[in-house]
Amino acid sequence: MARSYKQIIYANTPSPAIDPDLSKGTFALKTATIPDPIPDDKVLVRVHYLSLDPAMRNWLTAKRSYIAPVERGAVMRGQSIAQVLSMGRNLKGQYKVGDWVVALSGWQEYAVLGAQEAEKIVVPPGCRPWDAMSVLGLTGLTAYFGLLEVAGVKPGDTVVVSGAAGATGMVAGQLAKIKGAKRVVALAGSADKCSFLKNELGFDVAINYKDEDWRKQLKNAVPDYIDVYFDNVGGEILDACLSLAARNARFAICGAISQYNSAKPQGPANYLMMISQRVTMKGFIVLDFAERFPAARKELAQWLQEGKIKRKEYIVKGGLEAAPQGLVDLYAGVNTGKMMVEVAPLTEAVEANRATL
Amino acid sequence: MARSYKQIIYANTPSPAIDPDLSKGTFALKTATIPDPIPDDKVLVRVHYLSLDPAMRNWLTAKRSYIAPVERGAVMRGQSIAQVLSMGRNLKGQYKVGDWVVALSGWQEYAVLGAQEAEKIVVPPGCRPWDAMSVLGLTGLTAYFGLLEVAGVKPGDTVVVSGAAGATGMVAGQLAKIKGAKRVVALAGSADKCSFLKNELGFDVAINYKDEDWRKQLKNAVPDYIDVYFDNVGGEILDACLSLAARNARFAICGAISQYNSAKPQGPANYLMMISQRVTMKGFIVLDFAERFPAARKELAQWLQEGKIKRKEYIVKGGLEAAPQGLVDLYAGVNTGKMMVEVAPLTEAVEANRATL
Repeated sequence: MARSYKQIIYANTPSPAIDPDLSKGTFALKTATIPDPIPDDKVLVRVHYLSLDPAMRNWLTAKRSYIAPVERGAVMRGQSIAQVLSMGRNLKGQYKVGDWVVALSGWQEYAVLGAQEAEKIVVPPGCRPWDAMSVLGLTGLTAYFGLLEVAGVKPGDTVVVSGAAGATGMVAGQLAKIKGAKRVVALAGSADKCSFLKNELGFDVAINYKDEDWRKQLKNAVPDYIDVYFDNVGGEILDACLSLAARNARFAICGAISQYNSAKPQGPANYLMMISQRVTMKGFIVLDFAERFPAARKELAQWLQEGKIKRKEYIVKGGLEAAPQGLVDLYAGVNTGKMMVEVAPLTEAVEANRATL
Repeated sequence: MARSYKQIIYANTPSPAIDPDLSKGTFALKTATIPDPIPDDKVLVRVHYLSLDPAMRNWLTAKRSYIAPVERGAVMRGQSIAQVLSMGRNLKGQYKVGDWVVALSGWQEYAVLGAQEAEKIVVPPGCRPWDAMSVLGLTGLTAYFGLLEVAGVKPGDTVVVSGAAGATGMVAGQLAKIKGAKRVVALAGSADKCSFLKNELGFDVAINYKDEDWRKQLKNAVPDYIDVYFDNVGGEILDACLSLAARNARFAICGAISQYNSAKPQGPANYLMMISQRVTMKGFIVLDFAERFPAARKELAQWLQEGKIKRKEYIVKGGLEAAPQGLVDLYAGVNTGKMMVEVAPLTEAVEANRATL
């Protein structure tokens, strides 16, 4: 008997902000049916945790981006932690029922995927399946390559991280500590986040950029100026960091969450400081480092197990339908740590998942 | 008998534009007297050609710059081509009367300088003393290191140069050709400049950025997008080039003449293209490459003698007093080629110079 399930499709172009209303907004609900039998070269997975990422806004409308835009009418693109329920005959050697995968499932409760779209994961001792989507996944890897390769962090550097309570920023700041930075200064959007970053993660200074005097706090926090800036937000914070750049500073431009929903992004007016201080500013896409992911993951997993990297997740409840509002909330900065939507709780055993079929 | 001569001092902070009026503007005239005798460790020079440079506006007010600001009341800073008239006893072995020097003379008719401030030049066959201040001087060296080192130009690159009719831009574009660029596209501010760049210097395309459709012309000129952008102007042109950046493009930020006189510089709003196209943007100061100047000068001199690099000067007449208006005109873009003020014509022989003492 065919089982139907929910999908969320990309319905209307944001103008420019995302409208989370599923009845008339950016996204819409749709029902699909699990094929029976599963095609020979496909695997059926149950989606448990859907990743919400700052890049998603760009996937909707970007031109000349690193990735094609999502087509209107198609299931919204997204990564998830999912469990294998069954597979076509050609994939029987590759997966077994109950395997955990990082899936390019998109926003849906189940997904029928090719082997390229479902990467089996081994959960290291002390780790959880969703680590593969955060510290050991693209966000952790983005922090790793952005800080170590693009910015070339060195012992003794003064490092500033914006969006520091986000999934990537949090790892970037901790990696700076591991790599011997003299001072790690975090910028985040609430007193709670700042307290977490200072007390739990051990950053030297954490500044709430919603404080009126955040510029003064930032200036005071970097007496030797900024050697490395890991930018997740853009806008005024990037500008302030440019005005405080040290000689030969390296700015890794990872994201610009403050600008993605803006019709007319704000450019860094202080970019002339790049000349007088010989600043290098470099945009990057973590996928360019894909060949080196396995080695990086191994290092990250070790630091995670040793407690040198701490993780945190912000899990949105309410099932698949909660994803659009979750994405809006991500841009509003509600989360401390990796943001994900719980489509089905982790405690559901594979038998329970299979029983739903 | 003591001989008096004219100096121009920095009198009032520009607000923000330079006011060339010598009676109440940014600069003021002053009279000085040549010391007699010349101090033991000083050399007396006659200034012939004073260099006018886009960086000068910044020297007046810059904070945290690569160079200390000029102090109010002091002779305005500047380089010149000058001739040695006499020297103190300690420098008799180092200079002889009639030697040509590149002098850190500042804006004055004569200067009494230390040996560090007067670099003897040898004028290569077919060259002129002032080449040491343009193609073989800081402007040529800026083009050389900016294009070859900072931007790392490679054969096959599409190269765009802004401010291309200026002293640095002109050399940068020609070096791109020498280094095997597939296409060199120039931006300049008049039809005459564009015709010169295309017909005399052999650039592939030259676009007058004052044309209404310059953006369209630029887009059409770079079908494979921009690999290297050598930026002298900033502002809207930098922004347009970012939107046309090729994957892994390198942007050398040399100057921003469109922004120096602006109270609130305009940041590049399209900087997010740096992420999707993995653009590296790098500010630089040519003085950082000082150790390599001799080797670079040798190469540049060879290309100049072989006719692979063509030079052009824009010489402001009217003596020292013409310098402030000349500087204003530089920012307005009147010049094609290296801009200099003729304080005393080159044809004045050393005997004539000495006779003035």
